[in-house]
Amino acid sequence: MPYVDIVTALALIQFISFAAKVGSARGKYGIKAPATTGNEIFERHFRVQQNTLEVLIVVIPGLYIFSRYFNPLIAAGVGVIYLAGRQLYAASYVRDPAKRSLGFGLTMLPMMILITGAVIGAVRQLLWP
Amino acid sequence: MPYVDIVTALALIQFISFAAKVGSARGKYGIKAPATTGNEIFERHFRVQQNTLEVLIVVIPGLYIFSRYFNPLIAAGVGVIYLAGRQLYAASYVRDPAKRSLGFGLTMLPMMILITGAVIGAVRQLLWP
Amino acid sequence: MPYVDIVTALALIQFISFAAKVGSARGKYGIKAPATTGNEIFERHFRVQQNTLEVLIVVIPGLYIFSRYFNPLIAAGVGVIYLAGRQLYAASYVRDPAKRSLGFGLTMLPMMILITGAVIGAVRQLLWP
Repeated sequence: MPYVDIVTALALIQFISFAAKVGSARGKYGIKAPATTGNEIFERHFRVQQNTLEVLIVVIPGLYIFSRYFNPLIAAGVGVIYLAGRQLYAASYVRDPAKRSLGFGLTMLPMMILITGAVIGAVRQLLWP
Repeated sequence: MPYVDIVTALALIQFISFAAKVGSARGKYGIKAPATTGNEIFERHFRVQQNTLEVLIVVIPGLYIFSRYFNPLIAAGVGVIYLAGRQLYAASYVRDPAKRSLGFGLTMLPMMILITGAVIGAVRQLLWP
Repeated sequence: MPYVDIVTALALIQFISFAAKVGSARGKYGIKAPATTGNEIFERHFRVQQNTLEVLIVVIPGLYIFSRYFNPLIAAGVGVIYLAGRQLYAASYVRDPAKRSLGFGLTMLPMMILITGAVIGAVRQLLWP
């Protein structure tokens, strides 16, 4: 379990770092709260943060369910792919949103592995307890 | 627990399916990232996804806390109502946002049951361990 | 664990109360779904809710991981600071977004304590099991 906890904490720290970039883009481009539009670069940082929130709601439960039915170390390894993919996604989205596909794919793949594994593990447990 | 895990995984798969519809609406209505406005139908799909994220942050912890104090099978049953209500919410919101109330109510009801049960279960545990 | 469960449930009830205020601001200021802009006060309520979602994804896993490695009662105490800070954040943001810093700091501080504690606890467990 500690491996999964560390990967989860790193994913949350990564998310906080994206949020911090939104905060500093607010200042830099003069986007006053509560506005979330008005400057293209600010909006890119904002969408990176929002999209990361949208994937974390899947990745975190996925990591824990997967690790309960299979190996926590494998779950953590899948989580590391997620962390790298997300870092690539953020960097490429801010540079050019049209080029976000590879980074996005590298966060979708681990999500799919975790969720598929969670379903298979739970169903197997029900059928052959 | 496997019952709750399966319902959680289904809720996450449902959420991913809503996100996929946002992605395809981006292409169909020509809404280029990072924009999230500019076409009414795109915005409906987008709000369905966002609102589902807002309820998942309540439903997932609710399912697990409820199932620890009461019956995991009852928690999973409440989760199935949530899944059906959310499906109705998404379909009716995209058709006409003004008609989203029934689907919304059918996702609020299970949320309320899970959270109320979580509070009652935890307080009871503290008072009569 | 019941202490952490109660704080989690309270944080979710607080979040639902912020969402309810967004709903009533929709009616009051005539912002029809799917729109999320068009009135400054509505947008303040909306950003309070969205920002609370962004911190809950960190706070909830943080509470549980922290309480597994350290003391659940301390985790719950840190969570109570979060609850108070968030209440202050919401009230001051709606009054004047420029004055949200203190409330925001009082929700960032517990987040940092929980995440730092989670990392320290998990790494210590790996090194000295």
